[in-house]
Amino acid sequence: MTTPDCLDEVRWNDDGLVAAIAQDHKTGRVLMMAWMNAEALRLTIAEQRAVYWSRSRNALWRKGETSGHVQQLHSLRLDCDGDALLLDVEQVGGMACHTGREHCFYRRLEDGAWKTTEPVLKDPGAIYGDQ
Amino acid sequence: MTTPDCLDEVRWNDDGLVAAIAQDHKTGRVLMMAWMNAEALRLTIAEQRAVYWSRSRNALWRKGETSGHVQQLHSLRLDCDGDALLLDVEQVGGMACHTGREHCFYRRLEDGAWKTTEPVLKDPGAIYGDQ
Repeated sequence: MTTPDCLDEVRWNDDGLVAAIAQDHKTGRVLMMAWMNAEALRLTIAEQRAVYWSRSRNALWRKGETSGHVQQLHSLRLDCDGDALLLDVEQVGGMACHTGREHCFYRRLEDGAWKTTEPVLKDPGAIYGDQ
Repeated sequence: MTTPDCLDEVRWNDDGLVAAIAQDHKTGRVLMMAWMNAEALRLTIAEQRAVYWSRSRNALWRKGETSGHVQQLHSLRLDCDGDALLLDVEQVGGMACHTGREHCFYRRLEDGAWKTTEPVLKDPGAIYGDQ
């Protein structure tokens, strides 16, 4: 598959990655931030679903491949200096976070401490099986 | 000034930085992504306005210090693995981007090319002076 020209305008970091922010199409909530390499971005565009690069596993990460919590792409945006992407997505299952929460930003600073403000909607063991 | 304990839970990258996403409190629009070091985050909390670390200038960047387009902090969130912050902000002046646009994600992928979809609200020369 040829590489789309649009990838040339992305300013990849020294690790060949670009930051990718996923925002929920319905609620506007910022769901998560992850990373993409060129292959992940190419696949995201081709398959119209979020495909990230897992830095911990050093592998492509088709979001939802285990959990079923796929992120279907509505639109994709690039920022002014080309080093961040914004994905407008339909979050299948209503959960983006591996902890079983709606989104990953579930800790809010209150009185100088991070306080968990979002409930676990589904136990991670039930999402992923007991791996 | 002492360092708040909450900074210990941030997972700083090898450059001592954490990603910071600013979202507009009123519109829910994702305005920009930038970076903070510990000092920037400490100042953001202390001053209740966004203070970033400019990687290009290698200096603290009090957002709005030249343009007046300050980001007043409503809330601050940390993600599940501690390497991304989400700022809910009041965007003074209605412009976050140095190009004079409402937000930095003004290029949308359409038919394989990035298309500018957001108007310039104010000429950058008028925002910053002719530097």
